[in-house]
Amino acid sequence: MCQLLGMNCNTPTDIVFSFTGFALRGGLTDEHQDGWGIAFFEGAGVRHLVDYQAAIRSPLAELIKAHPIKSKNVIAHIRKATQGSIALENCHPFVRECWGINWVFAHNGDVPNFLPELTGAYLPIGNTDSERAFCYILQECRHHFGAKAPTLAQLAPFLEQLCHQIAQFGTFNIMLSNGHALFVHCSTKLHYIIRQFPFNTAQLSDQDMSINFAEVTTPKDRVAVIATQPLTTNETWAAFAKDEFKVFVDGAVMPRSNLDQTALSVS
Amino acid sequence: MCQLLGMNCNTPTDIVFSFTGFALRGGLTDEHQDGWGIAFFEGAGVRHLVDYQAAIRSPLAELIKAHPIKSKNVIAHIRKATQGSIALENCHPFVRECWGINWVFAHNGDVPNFLPELTGAYLPIGNTDSERAFCYILQECRHHFGAKAPTLAQLAPFLEQLCHQIAQFGTFNIMLSNGHALFVHCSTKLHYIIRQFPFNTAQLSDQDMSINFAEVTTPKDRVAVIATQPLTTNETWAAFAKDEFKVFVDGAVMPRSNLDQTALSVS
Repeated sequence: MCQLLGMNCNTPTDIVFSFTGFALRGGLTDEHQDGWGIAFFEGAGVRHLVDYQAAIRSPLAELIKAHPIKSKNVIAHIRKATQGSIALENCHPFVRECWGINWVFAHNGDVPNFLPELTGAYLPIGNTDSERAFCYILQECRHHFGAKAPTLAQLAPFLEQLCHQIAQFGTFNIMLSNGHALFVHCSTKLHYIIRQFPFNTAQLSDQDMSINFAEVTTPKDRVAVIATQPLTTNETWAAFAKDEFKVFVDGAVMPRSNLDQTALSVS
Repeated sequence: MCQLLGMNCNTPTDIVFSFTGFALRGGLTDEHQDGWGIAFFEGAGVRHLVDYQAAIRSPLAELIKAHPIKSKNVIAHIRKATQGSIALENCHPFVRECWGINWVFAHNGDVPNFLPELTGAYLPIGNTDSERAFCYILQECRHHFGAKAPTLAQLAPFLEQLCHQIAQFGTFNIMLSNGHALFVHCSTKLHYIIRQFPFNTAQLSDQDMSINFAEVTTPKDRVAVIATQPLTTNETWAAFAKDEFKVFVDGAVMPRSNLDQTALSVS
Protein backbone atom coordinates (compact mmCIF):
# COMPACT_ATOMS: atom_id res chain seq x y z
CA MET A 1 0.00 0.00 0.00
CA CYS A 2 0.98 3.61 -0.41
CA GLN A 3 0.11 7.04 0.87
CA LEU A 4 -1.21 10.03 -1.01
CA LEU A 5 -0.89 13.78 -0.50
CA GLY A 6 -2.67 16.42 -2.54
CA MET A 7 -2.99 20.19 -2.38
CA ASN A 8 -5.40 22.49 -4.19
CA CYS A 9 -5.27 26.26 -3.58
CA ASN A 10 -6.64 29.56 -4.81
CA THR A 11 -3.15 31.10 -4.82
CA PRO A 12 0.26 29.47 -5.47
CA THR A 13 1.36 27.96 -2.16
CA ASP A 14 4.39 25.97 -1.12
CA ILE A 15 3.82 22.48 0.25
CA VAL A 16 7.01 22.22 2.32
CA PHE A 17 5.26 21.89 5.69
CA SER A 18 2.92 19.08 4.63
CA PHE A 19 5.55 17.40 2.46
CA THR A 20 8.03 17.35 5.35
CA GLY A 21 5.68 15.28 7.49
CA PHE A 22 4.56 13.17 4.55
CA ALA A 23 8.11 12.37 3.40
CA LEU A 24 9.01 11.03 6.85
CA ARG A 25 6.47 8.26 6.28
CA GLY A 26 8.64 7.25 3.33
CA GLY A 27 10.93 5.06 5.41
CA LEU A 28 11.12 6.64 8.88
CA THR A 29 7.75 6.96 10.64
CA ASP A 30 6.14 4.47 8.28
CA GLU A 31 7.12 1.72 5.84
CA HIS A 32 6.55 3.32 2.42
CA GLN A 33 10.13 3.21 1.16
CA ASP A 34 9.86 1.78 -2.37
CA GLY A 35 9.97 5.13 -4.13
CA TRP A 36 8.13 8.39 -4.07
CA GLY A 37 7.13 11.17 -6.38
CA ILE A 38 5.60 14.60 -6.55
CA ALA A 39 4.15 16.71 -9.35
CA PHE A 40 3.67 20.48 -9.13
CA PHE A 41 1.62 22.36 -11.68
CA GLU A 42 3.20 25.66 -12.68
CA GLY A 43 0.85 27.28 -15.17
CA ALA A 44 0.18 24.68 -17.86
CA GLY A 45 3.50 23.00 -17.11
CA VAL A 46 4.26 20.27 -14.60
CA ARG A 47 7.39 19.84 -12.53
CA HIS A 48 7.56 16.08 -12.07
CA LEU A 49 10.02 14.57 -9.62
CA VAL A 50 10.11 10.84 -8.98
CA ASP A 51 12.61 8.54 -7.33
CA TYR A 52 12.83 4.88 -6.47
CA GLN A 53 14.85 5.66 -3.37
CA ALA A 54 12.99 6.14 -0.08
CA ALA A 55 11.84 9.73 0.38
CA ILE A 56 13.86 10.07 3.59
CA ARG A 57 17.09 9.23 1.71
CA SER A 58 16.38 11.11 -1.52
CA PRO A 59 18.41 14.21 -2.48
CA LEU A 60 15.46 15.33 -4.62
CA ALA A 61 13.22 15.37 -1.53
CA GLU A 62 15.82 17.53 0.23
CA LEU A 63 15.85 19.90 -2.74
CA ILE A 64 12.07 20.39 -2.48
CA LYS A 65 12.41 21.34 1.17
CA ALA A 66 15.39 23.66 0.52
CA HIS A 67 13.87 25.41 -2.53
CA PRO A 68 10.11 25.74 -1.95
CA ILE A 69 8.06 25.55 -5.15
CA LYS A 70 4.77 27.46 -5.18
CA SER A 71 1.89 25.77 -6.95
CA LYS A 72 -1.90 25.77 -6.96
CA ASN A 73 -2.10 22.01 -7.51
CA VAL A 74 0.26 19.36 -6.18
CA ILE A 75 0.02 15.56 -5.97
CA ALA A 76 2.57 13.47 -4.06
CA HIS A 77 2.89 9.77 -3.36
CA ILE A 78 5.08 7.46 -1.29
CA ARG A 79 5.14 3.86 -2.38
CA LYS A 80 5.26 0.48 -0.76
CA ALA A 81 5.41 -1.80 -3.79
CA THR A 82 2.59 -4.32 -4.05
CA GLN A 83 1.98 -4.42 -7.81
CA GLY A 84 4.89 -3.71 -10.18
CA SER A 85 8.63 -3.72 -9.54
CA ILE A 86 10.69 -0.97 -7.87
CA ALA A 87 11.60 1.12 -10.88
CA LEU A 88 11.33 4.72 -12.02
CA GLU A 89 8.55 3.99 -14.51
CA ASN A 90 6.39 2.59 -11.67
CA CYS A 91 6.70 5.62 -9.40
CA HIS A 92 3.59 7.75 -8.99
CA PRO A 93 2.40 10.32 -9.82
CA PHE A 94 2.01 9.59 -13.53
CA VAL A 95 1.73 12.43 -16.06
CA ARG A 96 0.02 12.29 -19.45
CA GLU A 97 -1.41 14.83 -21.91
CA CYS A 98 -5.06 14.90 -22.95
CA TRP A 99 -6.74 17.77 -24.88
CA GLY A 100 -3.43 19.68 -24.77
CA ILE A 101 -3.57 19.66 -20.95
CA ASN A 102 -1.28 17.90 -18.49
CA TRP A 103 -3.01 15.32 -16.26
CA VAL A 104 -1.40 14.07 -13.07
CA PHE A 105 -2.56 10.89 -11.33
CA ALA A 106 -1.65 8.93 -8.20
CA HIS A 107 -3.29 5.87 -6.64
CA ASN A 108 -3.34 4.15 -3.28
CA GLY A 109 -4.66 0.60 -3.22
CA ASP A 110 -4.72 -2.40 -5.53
CA VAL A 111 -6.89 -3.24 -8.52
CA PRO A 112 -4.83 -6.17 -9.93
CA ASN A 113 -7.77 -7.78 -11.71
CA PHE A 114 -8.85 -4.62 -13.51
CA LEU A 115 -7.65 -5.52 -17.00
CA PRO A 116 -9.51 -3.26 -19.42
CA GLU A 117 -8.97 -3.28 -23.16
CA LEU A 118 -6.50 -0.52 -23.99
CA THR A 119 -6.83 0.51 -27.61
CA GLY A 120 -3.49 2.31 -27.90
CA ALA A 121 -4.31 5.96 -27.22
CA TYR A 122 -2.71 5.66 -23.79
CA LEU A 123 -0.55 2.63 -22.96
CA PRO A 124 1.26 1.88 -19.68
CA ILE A 125 5.05 2.30 -19.71
CA GLY A 126 5.58 0.45 -16.43
CA ASN A 127 3.80 -2.58 -15.01
CA THR A 128 1.56 -1.22 -12.24
CA ASP A 129 -2.20 -1.66 -12.04
CA SER A 130 -2.29 2.07 -11.18
CA GLU A 131 -0.83 3.30 -14.47
CA ARG A 132 -3.10 0.87 -16.33
CA ALA A 133 -6.15 2.39 -14.60
CA PHE A 134 -4.92 5.92 -15.41
CA CYS A 135 -4.48 5.02 -19.08
CA TYR A 136 -8.02 3.59 -19.10
CA ILE A 137 -9.48 6.76 -17.56
CA LEU A 138 -7.85 9.02 -20.17
CA GLN A 139 -8.74 6.64 -23.00
CA GLU A 140 -12.41 6.64 -21.95
CA CYS A 141 -12.42 10.44 -21.55
CA ARG A 142 -11.00 10.90 -25.04
CA HIS A 143 -13.43 8.34 -26.45
CA HIS A 144 -16.44 9.90 -24.71
CA PHE A 145 -15.71 13.60 -25.24
CA GLY A 146 -13.65 13.42 -28.44
CA ALA A 147 -10.68 15.60 -29.31
CA LYS A 148 -12.09 18.80 -27.70
CA ALA A 149 -11.99 19.33 -23.95
CA PRO A 150 -15.33 19.11 -22.10
CA THR A 151 -16.41 21.48 -19.34
CA LEU A 152 -15.69 20.68 -15.71
CA ALA A 153 -19.45 20.22 -15.20
CA GLN A 154 -19.45 17.55 -17.92
CA LEU A 155 -16.20 15.87 -16.90
CA ALA A 156 -16.71 15.49 -13.14
CA PRO A 157 -19.69 13.07 -13.21
CA PHE A 158 -18.01 11.05 -15.97
CA LEU A 159 -14.82 10.69 -13.91
CA GLU A 160 -16.87 9.75 -10.84
CA GLN A 161 -18.56 6.98 -12.77
CA LEU A 162 -15.20 5.65 -14.04
CA CYS A 163 -13.82 5.66 -10.49
CA HIS A 164 -16.81 3.69 -9.19
CA GLN A 165 -16.37 1.20 -12.03
CA ILE A 166 -12.66 0.63 -11.33
CA ALA A 167 -13.17 0.57 -7.54
CA GLN A 168 -15.29 -2.58 -7.95
CA PHE A 169 -12.02 -4.39 -8.69
CA GLY A 170 -10.37 -3.53 -5.39
CA THR A 171 -9.20 -0.41 -3.59
CA PHE A 172 -9.11 2.81 -5.58
CA ASN A 173 -8.14 5.85 -3.56
CA ILE A 174 -6.94 8.31 -6.19
CA MET A 175 -6.04 11.90 -6.93
CA LEU A 176 -6.21 13.36 -10.43
CA SER A 177 -5.55 16.95 -11.47
CA ASN A 178 -5.43 19.05 -14.61
CA GLY A 179 -3.82 22.01 -12.82
CA HIS A 180 -7.18 23.65 -12.12
CA ALA A 181 -9.36 21.05 -10.38
CA LEU A 182 -8.21 18.24 -8.08
CA PHE A 183 -10.46 15.18 -8.39
CA VAL A 184 -10.37 12.79 -5.44
CA HIS A 185 -11.98 9.37 -5.11
CA CYS A 186 -11.94 7.41 -1.85
CA SER A 187 -12.43 3.66 -1.59
CA THR A 188 -11.16 3.18 1.94
CA LYS A 189 -9.16 6.00 3.48
CA LEU A 190 -8.58 9.70 2.75
CA HIS A 191 -8.80 12.84 4.89
CA TYR A 192 -8.86 16.53 4.07
CA ILE A 193 -8.69 19.93 5.64
CA ILE A 194 -9.49 23.39 4.29
CA ARG A 195 -7.23 26.08 5.70
CA GLN A 196 -8.56 29.61 5.36
CA PHE A 197 -8.83 32.91 7.26
CA PRO A 198 -8.42 33.14 10.23
CA PHE A 199 -5.30 30.95 9.95
CA ASN A 200 -3.80 29.21 12.97
CA THR A 201 -0.72 27.28 13.99
CA ALA A 202 -0.47 23.66 12.86
CA GLN A 203 1.66 20.95 14.45
CA LEU A 204 3.00 18.05 12.35
CA SER A 205 2.27 14.57 13.67
CA ASP A 206 5.43 12.96 12.21
CA GLN A 207 8.00 15.48 13.46
CA ASP A 208 8.27 18.16 16.12
CA MET A 209 7.57 20.99 13.69
CA SER A 210 4.88 23.64 13.66
CA ILE A 211 3.97 26.60 11.51
CA ASN A 212 1.82 29.65 12.12
CA PHE A 213 -0.01 29.94 8.81
CA ALA A 214 -1.22 33.44 9.79
CA GLU A 215 2.36 34.65 9.26
CA VAL A 216 2.74 33.27 5.73
CA THR A 217 -0.70 33.88 4.21
CA THR A 218 -3.06 36.67 3.23
CA PRO A 219 -6.71 36.71 4.36
CA LYS A 220 -7.84 35.77 0.84
CA ASP A 221 -5.79 32.54 0.70
CA ARG A 222 -7.54 29.20 0.82
CA VAL A 223 -5.76 25.84 0.72
CA ALA A 224 -7.19 22.34 0.68
CA VAL A 225 -4.84 19.55 1.78
CA ILE A 226 -5.87 15.94 1.22
CA ALA A 227 -3.92 13.01 2.65
CA THR A 228 -4.32 9.32 3.37
CA GLN A 229 -3.78 10.02 7.07
CA PRO A 230 -4.06 13.43 8.78
CA LEU A 231 -0.68 15.18 8.84
CA THR A 232 -1.23 17.40 11.87
CA THR A 233 -2.23 16.73 15.48
CA ASN A 234 -4.05 19.94 16.43
CA GLU A 235 -6.43 20.40 13.51
CA THR A 236 -9.65 18.64 12.63
CA TRP A 237 -9.40 16.68 9.41
CA ALA A 238 -12.57 15.46 7.71
CA ALA A 239 -12.69 11.81 6.64
CA PHE A 240 -13.93 10.86 3.17
CA ALA A 241 -16.78 8.37 3.12
CA LYS A 242 -16.40 5.06 1.27
CA ASP A 243 -16.89 5.57 -2.49
CA GLU A 244 -16.95 9.34 -2.09
CA PHE A 245 -15.83 11.50 -5.01
CA LYS A 246 -15.01 15.18 -4.52
CA VAL A 247 -13.86 17.98 -6.79
CA PHE A 248 -11.61 20.63 -5.25
CA VAL A 249 -11.24 24.01 -7.00
CA ASP A 250 -9.50 27.10 -5.59
CA GLY A 251 -8.98 25.39 -2.24
CA ALA A 252 -12.62 24.43 -1.66
CA VAL A 253 -14.90 21.46 -2.24
CA MET A 254 -16.96 22.41 -5.25
CA PRO A 255 -20.69 21.55 -5.15
CA ARG A 256 -21.86 19.89 -8.35
CA SER A 257 -24.21 22.77 -9.14
CA ASN A 258 -21.29 25.22 -9.11
CA LEU A 259 -18.98 23.37 -11.50
CA ASP A 260 -17.62 25.43 -14.34
CA GLN A 261 -19.65 25.34 -17.57
CA THR A 262 -16.75 26.55 -19.74
CA ALA A 263 -14.24 24.28 -21.48
CA LEU A 264 -11.38 23.01 -19.33
CA SER A 265 -8.24 25.04 -19.12
CA VAL A 266 -5.45 25.59 -16.64
CA SER A 267 -5.94 28.87 -14.79
CA MET B 1 18.21 29.90 -30.67
CA CYS B 2 19.14 27.18 -28.28
CA GLN B 3 21.78 24.54 -27.73
CA LEU B 4 21.40 20.78 -27.57
CA LEU B 5 23.32 18.06 -25.77
CA GLY B 6 22.74 14.34 -26.18
CA MET B 7 24.43 11.20 -24.92
CA ASN B 8 23.97 7.59 -26.04
CA CYS B 9 26.01 4.80 -24.42
CA ASN B 10 26.37 1.04 -24.22
CA THR B 11 26.56 1.18 -20.43
CA PRO B 12 24.91 3.61 -17.97
CA THR B 13 27.19 6.63 -17.79
CA ASP B 14 26.97 9.91 -15.92
CA ILE B 15 26.89 13.10 -17.94
CA VAL B 16 28.31 15.43 -15.28
CA PHE B 17 31.45 16.40 -17.22
CA SER B 18 29.64 17.32 -20.45
CA PHE B 19 26.68 18.86 -18.61
CA THR B 20 28.99 21.08 -16.56
CA GLY B 21 30.42 22.70 -19.67
CA PHE B 22 27.05 22.78 -21.40
CA ALA B 23 25.24 24.39 -18.42
CA LEU B 24 27.75 27.26 -18.36
CA ARG B 25 26.43 28.27 -21.76
CA GLY B 26 23.08 28.77 -20.04
CA GLY B 27 23.81 32.32 -18.98
CA LEU B 28 27.57 32.54 -18.39
CA THR B 29 29.73 31.67 -21.41
CA ASP B 30 26.77 32.08 -23.76
CA GLU B 31 23.36 33.74 -23.86
CA HIS B 32 20.93 30.80 -23.50
CA GLN B 33 19.31 31.78 -20.22
CA ASP B 34 15.56 31.42 -20.83
CA GLY B 35 15.29 28.01 -19.24
CA TRP B 36 16.84 24.60 -19.60
CA GLY B 37 15.98 20.98 -19.20
CA ILE B 38 17.36 17.48 -19.18
CA ALA B 39 15.85 14.02 -19.46
CA PHE B 40 17.59 10.82 -18.35
CA PHE B 41 16.27 7.41 -19.30
CA GLU B 42 16.49 4.93 -16.44
CA GLY B 43 15.14 1.64 -17.76
CA ALA B 44 11.74 2.40 -19.26
CA GLY B 45 11.36 5.42 -16.99
CA VAL B 46 12.46 8.99 -17.58
CA ARG B 47 13.79 11.44 -15.03
CA HIS B 48 12.70 14.78 -16.48
CA LEU B 49 14.04 18.00 -14.99
CA VAL B 50 13.11 21.36 -16.48
CA ASP B 51 13.40 24.91 -15.25
CA TYR B 52 12.69 28.35 -16.63
CA GLN B 53 15.59 29.78 -14.67
CA ALA B 54 19.00 30.00 -16.34
CA ALA B 55 20.99 26.79 -15.94
CA ILE B 56 23.81 28.63 -14.16
CA ARG B 57 21.38 29.83 -11.45
CA SER B 58 19.27 26.70 -11.13
CA PRO B 59 19.38 24.56 -7.95
CA LEU B 60 18.22 21.59 -10.05
CA ALA B 61 21.32 21.94 -12.23
CA GLU B 62 23.47 21.92 -9.08
CA LEU B 63 21.71 18.77 -7.93
CA ILE B 64 22.61 16.97 -11.17
CA LYS B 65 26.26 17.83 -10.67
CA ALA B 66 26.22 16.84 -6.97
CA HIS B 67 24.35 13.54 -7.45
CA PRO B 68 25.43 12.03 -10.78
CA ILE B 69 22.69 10.06 -12.52
CA LYS B 70 23.83 7.17 -14.72
CA SER B 71 21.90 6.68 -17.92
CA LYS B 72 22.35 5.16 -21.37
CA ASN B 73 20.36 7.95 -23.06
CA VAL B 74 20.24 11.61 -22.10
CA ILE B 75 18.95 14.70 -23.89
CA ALA B 76 19.55 18.22 -22.53
CA HIS B 77 18.66 21.67 -23.82
CA ILE B 78 19.38 25.28 -22.90
CA ARG B 79 16.94 27.80 -24.26
CA LYS B 80 17.06 31.28 -25.66
CA ALA B 81 13.38 31.96 -26.27
CA THR B 82 12.48 32.81 -29.86
CA GLN B 83 9.09 31.10 -30.21
CA GLY B 84 6.86 30.71 -27.13
CA SER B 85 6.98 32.47 -23.77
CA ILE B 86 9.36 31.71 -20.88
CA ALA B 87 7.31 29.13 -19.01
CA LEU B 88 7.76 25.61 -17.70
CA GLU B 89 5.54 24.07 -20.40
CA ASN B 90 7.82 25.55 -23.08
CA CYS B 91 11.07 24.11 -21.70
CA HIS B 92 12.67 21.30 -23.68
CA PRO B 93 13.07 18.37 -23.65
CA PHE B 94 9.46 17.29 -24.08
CA VAL B 95 8.32 13.81 -23.02
CA ARG B 96 5.36 11.85 -24.42
CA GLU B 97 4.31 8.19 -24.53
CA CYS B 98 3.85 6.25 -27.76
CA TRP B 99 3.44 2.43 -27.99
CA GLY B 100 3.89 2.23 -24.20
CA ILE B 101 7.38 3.76 -24.57
CA ASN B 102 8.63 7.14 -23.36
CA TRP B 103 9.85 9.46 -26.13
CA VAL B 104 12.05 12.45 -25.37
CA PHE B 105 12.52 15.31 -27.85
CA ALA B 106 14.48 18.57 -28.00
CA HIS B 107 14.88 21.07 -30.83
CA ASN B 108 17.24 23.83 -31.80
CA GLY B 109 16.06 26.23 -34.48
CA ASP B 110 12.77 27.73 -35.63
CA VAL B 111 9.97 26.33 -37.77
CA PRO B 112 7.28 28.97 -37.00
CA ASN B 113 5.38 28.38 -40.24
CA PHE B 114 5.13 24.63 -39.81
CA LEU B 115 1.45 24.41 -38.89
CA PRO B 116 0.38 20.80 -39.51
CA GLU B 117 -3.10 19.51 -38.79
CA LEU B 118 -3.06 17.89 -35.37
CA THR B 119 -5.91 15.42 -35.02
CA GLY B 120 -5.86 15.17 -31.23
CA ALA B 121 -3.69 12.12 -30.51
CA TYR B 122 -0.88 14.43 -29.38
CA LEU B 123 -1.60 18.10 -28.71
CA PRO B 124 0.86 20.79 -27.58
CA ILE B 125 0.55 21.95 -23.97
CA GLY B 126 2.74 25.02 -24.42
CA ASN B 127 3.04 27.38 -27.38
CA THR B 128 6.37 26.51 -29.03
CA ASP B 129 6.83 25.45 -32.63
CA SER B 130 9.11 22.70 -31.24
CA GLU B 131 6.43 20.94 -29.19
CA ARG B 132 4.05 21.26 -32.16
CA ALA B 133 6.59 19.50 -34.40
CA PHE B 134 7.11 16.77 -31.78
CA CYS B 135 3.35 16.17 -31.53
CA TYR B 136 3.20 15.93 -35.33
CA ILE B 137 6.04 13.38 -35.44
CA LEU B 138 4.37 11.10 -32.89
CA GLN B 139 0.96 11.53 -34.50
CA GLU B 140 2.35 10.50 -37.90
CA CYS B 141 4.24 7.55 -36.37
CA ARG B 142 1.07 6.30 -34.68
CA HIS B 143 -0.93 6.86 -37.85
CA HIS B 144 1.63 5.10 -40.05
CA PHE B 145 2.53 2.12 -37.85
CA GLY B 146 -0.71 1.77 -35.85
CA ALA B 147 -0.98 0.80 -32.20
CA LYS B 148 1.92 -1.70 -32.25
CA ALA B 149 5.53 -0.56 -32.18
CA PRO B 150 7.53 -0.95 -35.42
CA THR B 151 11.12 -2.19 -35.58
CA LEU B 152 14.01 0.24 -35.47
CA ALA B 153 14.75 -0.66 -39.11
CA GLN B 154 11.20 0.41 -40.04
CA LEU B 155 11.07 3.49 -37.84
CA ALA B 156 14.42 5.16 -38.69
CA PRO B 157 13.74 5.93 -42.39
CA PHE B 158 10.22 7.12 -41.54
CA LEU B 159 11.58 9.52 -38.91
CA GLU B 160 14.23 10.74 -41.33
CA GLN B 161 11.59 11.54 -43.90
CA LEU B 162 9.49 13.45 -41.32
CA CYS B 163 12.56 15.46 -40.27
CA HIS B 164 13.32 16.42 -43.88
CA GLN B 165 9.68 17.46 -44.33
CA ILE B 166 9.65 19.69 -41.24
CA ALA B 167 13.14 21.08 -41.96
CA GLN B 168 11.76 22.66 -45.14
CA PHE B 169 9.97 25.15 -42.90
CA GLY B 170 13.13 26.46 -41.23
CA THR B 171 15.87 25.11 -38.99
CA PHE B 172 15.32 21.70 -37.46
CA ASN B 173 18.27 20.41 -35.44
CA ILE B 174 16.70 17.80 -33.18
CA MET B 175 17.36 14.91 -30.84
CA LEU B 176 14.77 12.21 -30.19
CA SER B 177 15.16 9.09 -28.04
CA ASN B 178 13.11 6.12 -26.86
CA GLY B 179 15.74 5.08 -24.30
CA HIS B 180 17.43 2.70 -26.73
CA ALA B 181 18.23 4.67 -29.89
CA LEU B 182 19.09 8.37 -30.15
CA PHE B 183 17.85 9.85 -33.43
CA VAL B 184 19.58 13.06 -34.51
CA HIS B 185 18.72 15.37 -37.40
CA CYS B 186 20.90 18.32 -38.36
CA SER B 187 19.70 21.31 -40.36
CA THR B 188 22.57 23.66 -39.63
CA LYS B 189 24.85 22.78 -36.73
CA LEU B 190 25.60 19.67 -34.65
CA HIS B 191 28.80 17.89 -33.67
CA TYR B 192 29.53 14.50 -32.16
CA ILE B 193 32.29 12.43 -30.70
CA ILE B 194 32.54 8.71 -29.92
CA ARG B 195 34.62 7.98 -26.84
CA GLN B 196 35.88 4.42 -26.56
CA PHE B 197 38.93 2.37 -25.55
CA PRO B 198 41.69 3.55 -25.27
CA PHE B 199 40.21 6.49 -23.32
CA ASN B 200 42.06 9.75 -22.87
CA THR B 201 41.87 12.98 -20.93
CA ALA B 202 39.38 15.58 -22.13
CA GLN B 203 39.48 19.31 -21.41
CA LEU B 204 36.25 21.38 -21.25
CA SER B 205 36.16 24.47 -23.43
CA ASP B 206 33.81 26.46 -21.15
CA GLN B 207 35.65 25.92 -17.86
CA ASP B 208 39.10 24.93 -16.64
CA MET B 209 38.09 21.33 -15.98
CA SER B 210 39.44 18.08 -17.32
CA ILE B 211 38.75 14.40 -16.79
CA ASN B 212 40.78 11.29 -17.52
CA PHE B 213 38.12 8.97 -18.86
CA ALA B 214 40.53 6.02 -18.57
CA GLU B 215 40.10 6.23 -14.79
CA VAL B 216 36.30 6.06 -14.81
CA THR B 217 35.57 3.58 -17.59
CA THR B 218 36.09 -0.06 -18.52
CA PRO B 219 37.57 -1.09 -21.90
CA LYS B 220 34.12 -2.19 -23.10
CA ASP B 221 32.46 1.21 -22.56
CA ARG B 222 31.46 3.31 -25.54
CA VAL B 223 29.83 6.72 -25.30
CA ALA B 224 28.56 9.00 -28.04
CA VAL B 225 28.16 12.68 -27.13
CA ILE B 226 26.35 15.00 -29.51
CA ALA B 227 26.25 18.78 -29.02
CA THR B 228 25.50 21.93 -30.96
CA GLN B 229 29.07 23.09 -30.40
CA PRO B 230 32.02 20.88 -29.36
CA LEU B 231 32.35 20.82 -25.58
CA THR B 232 36.07 20.04 -25.35
CA THR B 233 39.20 21.66 -26.75
CA ASN B 234 41.56 18.69 -27.13
CA GLU B 235 39.37 16.16 -28.93
CA THR B 236 38.27 15.97 -32.54
CA TRP B 237 34.52 16.36 -32.92
CA ALA B 238 32.87 15.40 -36.19
CA ALA B 239 30.46 17.88 -37.74
CA PHE B 240 27.09 16.76 -39.05
CA ALA B 241 26.38 17.64 -42.66
CA LYS B 242 23.37 19.73 -43.59
CA ASP B 243 20.18 17.58 -43.59
CA GLU B 244 22.06 14.64 -42.12
CA PHE B 245 20.12 12.12 -40.02
CA LYS B 246 21.93 9.63 -37.79
CA VAL B 247 20.83 6.87 -35.45
CA PHE B 248 23.02 6.21 -32.40
CA VAL B 249 22.72 2.87 -30.58
CA ASP B 250 25.02 1.62 -27.79
CA GLY B 251 27.34 4.59 -28.25
CA ALA B 252 27.91 4.17 -31.97
CA VAL B 253 26.48 5.46 -35.23
CA MET B 254 24.37 2.61 -36.55
CA PRO B 255 24.56 1.89 -40.29
CA ARG B 256 21.11 1.48 -41.85
CA SER B 257 21.82 -2.14 -42.73
CA ASN B 258 22.48 -2.99 -39.07
CA LEU B 259 19.30 -1.53 -37.59
CA ASP B 260 17.37 -3.85 -35.34
CA GLN B 261 14.65 -5.91 -37.01
CA THR B 262 12.81 -6.65 -33.76
CA ALA B 263 10.02 -4.51 -32.33
CA LEU B 264 11.12 -1.43 -30.39
CA SER B 265 11.73 -1.74 -26.70
CA VAL B 266 13.86 -0.06 -24.09
CA SER B 267 16.92 -2.16 -23.28
